[in-house]
Amino acid sequence: MRVLGIDPGFDRLGFGVVDLQGSLVNWVSHGIVQTSKYDLYGQRLQQVRDGMKKAILDFSPDVVAVEQLFFSSNAKTAMQVGMARGVILLEIADAGIALVEVMPNQVKQGLTGWGAADKKAIQHMVQVTLKLDALPKPDDAADALAIAIVGGMFFRHPK
Amino acid sequence: MRVLGIDPGFDRLGFGVVDLQGSLVNWVSHGIVQTSKYDLYGQRLQQVRDGMKKAILDFSPDVVAVEQLFFSSNAKTAMQVGMARGVILLEIADAGIALVEVMPNQVKQGLTGWGAADKKAIQHMVQVTLKLDALPKPDDAADALAIAIVGGMFFRHPK
Repeated sequence: MRVLGIDPGFDRLGFGVVDLQGSLVNWVSHGIVQTSKYDLYGQRLQQVRDGMKKAILDFSPDVVAVEQLFFSSNAKTAMQVGMARGVILLEIADAGIALVEVMPNQVKQGLTGWGAADKKAIQHMVQVTLKLDALPKPDDAADALAIAIVGGMFFRHPK
Repeated sequence: MRVLGIDPGFDRLGFGVVDLQGSLVNWVSHGIVQTSKYDLYGQRLQQVRDGMKKAILDFSPDVVAVEQLFFSSNAKTAMQVGMARGVILLEIADAGIALVEVMPNQVKQGLTGWGAADKKAIQHMVQVTLKLDALPKPDDAADALAIAIVGGMFFRHPK
């Protein structure tokens, strides 16, 4: 089963792709979609949409896992991430692909066994789980791989 | 010049259409797009997108005016409105139509001359300006007409 993990963002969206086979998890790809600060919001949302479309086309995921954010200390950021998130969920719905939403503490718990693990611990577990030679970079792509791994586990074993 | 005004929302999106000719403002249409609470987020965003697409197709606006919200006391609401807003701005960008964003206090100021006017005063001025027999209903559609009127004025006379 192939999982596309998405770390939703407006400035930059992280994506990570893994294959789950039995108890094995294999790395497929990871990267980011960067939007331009010099473009209008509508154009930046088109860049997010085009990035999602390309990832779905390139990797044909069976499920897309998206991190769910419930709050933000900064309302402007919440609105921007919300806009990107809307475009992302629309694209997944249009593609007719299953969606699984995971919360940050579930990603931490799922990968390290501890819901308050720090970013470095998560990235280390992503590297170990996927047998990568180095920590995946940049951070948003590493987070997206973590979301893909845990989202895939949740999808196969719903709580 | 035809203006489509949008009061962005996730549960319900208001739209209002006006024609500006010289100093005249004529009513064309108003209504809402209601999304179903029983559907998944992705489906509800498809309903928002389809509603926007239909309004643009039906009314061929020269410009779309969207209310800009900078904050919300409720983070869940901010995220949901942000998602709808993202889909709305994407659709406008895809249609290649000019966008003008207006803030709530600008709508109040523009229609009543007072930036802190209440909802009833706004709706009354919408009724008077558009020479309607009754207050436009529901509230979200009335707000969208107000946004269209003020957005159109801003678009013709940028500050």
